Amino acid sequence: MIRPDMATMLAFVATDATVDPVLLDALLGRAVDASFNAITVDGDTSTNDACVLVATGMAGTPPIRSITDAGARELATALEEVCLELAQAIVRDAEGATKFVEVMVRGGLDVAECRRAAYAVAESPLVKTALFASDPNWGRILAAVGRAGVVGLDVARVAIDLDEVPIVRGGARDPAYTEADGQRVMAREEIRVVIDLGRGAASASVWTSDLSHDYVRINAEYRT
Amino acid sequence: MIRPDMATMLAFVATDATVDPVLLDALLGRAVDASFNAITVDGDTSTNDACVLVATGMAGTPPIRSITDAGARELATALEEVCLELAQAIVRDAEGATKFVEVMVRGGLDVAECRRAAYAVAESPLVKTALFASDPNWGRILAAVGRAGVVGLDVARVAIDLDEVPIVRGGARDPAYTEADGQRVMAREEIRVVIDLGRGAASASVWTSDLSHDYVRINAEYRT
Repeated sequence: MIRPDMATMLAFVATDATVDPVLLDALLGRAVDASFNAITVDGDTSTNDACVLVATGMAGTPPIRSITDAGARELATALEEVCLELAQAIVRDAEGATKFVEVMVRGGLDVAECRRAAYAVAESPLVKTALFASDPNWGRILAAVGRAGVVGLDVARVAIDLDEVPIVRGGARDPAYTEADGQRVMAREEIRVVIDLGRGAASASVWTSDLSHDYVRINAEYRT
Repeated sequence: MIRPDMATMLAFVATDATVDPVLLDALLGRAVDASFNAITVDGDTSTNDACVLVATGMAGTPPIRSITDAGARELATALEEVCLELAQAIVRDAEGATKFVEVMVRGGLDVAECRRAAYAVAESPLVKTALFASDPNWGRILAAVGRAGVVGLDVARVAIDLDEVPIVRGGARDPAYTEADGQRVMAREEIRVVIDLGRGAASASVWTSDLSHDYVRINAEYRT
């Protein structure tokens, strides 16, 4: 059911640094946005997520009060890495998951539209069943981008890559693309779908799983 | 893949009445809005839907130019009935469907928020797998309503009924509700979920199917 909007996922992160609570909160918000709030299994949100960050001060190091203080950027980076690793672990453990997929959308006007397009692809049942089948069905990916509500999108500028394989260029199948290339990528357990909207410099990633027989079994028969 | 936004579903409707093209277009738009554009299988839109309405004039009856002309309201009603029957037939024929479900949301401030809530429930994989399992999991329904983006929704005013059985009252389980009652309804092939938002007079219905093993099989193995 996981698509956290910080609503059944409980995460606890701790540092022994001494950090000002206001800065700590800002760092956590930023790290959560690009990790726990950038994953989706099926689009259904859970109802009591939380991510708690504690700074114990036990290390006895100099207090960090602003992002310009010594150690602040290292702390921010470490926090982002830990949160991303934990968030991705949730996706790897999703109901019936056989694939771990990053949907990266770039070339957008802003991060919001990149995320909207990434979520539309990541939560499309047709894309997710194609992933389960290891089927390089780029038409399903392109169709999901097309209905994502990216206002004014010019499909003739859209490009799609599966890992190192260019599939779509200029809104249509790349002439050099062969289905054997697509199938080679889709057979992998970890796949990166890169979609370029061709209209800006913003980008965003969302991590997701496929839609398998076991997804249905687990969510339909959880009481038996 | 069906959630038409009039983008692979082709519908052709004809009448032998003589009708002004402008009026015909208005009547069709209204009928399509409450039928073909009020169904969803999985939220994925198809890419070349169309609904065409032809008035042949072969009946030789007096021309209908405005909604106040004789026969105009009868034509509008007949058109709405035909479109709804055809649209519902698409849902009954959905990939792997074992249930036909109406999600009716009422008590909203406007039709738009009712439709948003209805689609959130109708497209929730957790609600759809519960329907497949004939599991009266009202928590999943309520959670989908809660994430639908109905701004300012007071969950303490939300009510949910499955057919004739009241399940949720005041945002919580109805004291009189028993799981046996819920399971009796969920065992049916046709189910009506009625959700009252408790804040207005608007309403909207969306028709959908469940998410079964066969949905995954058909959409994953369609090429084998």
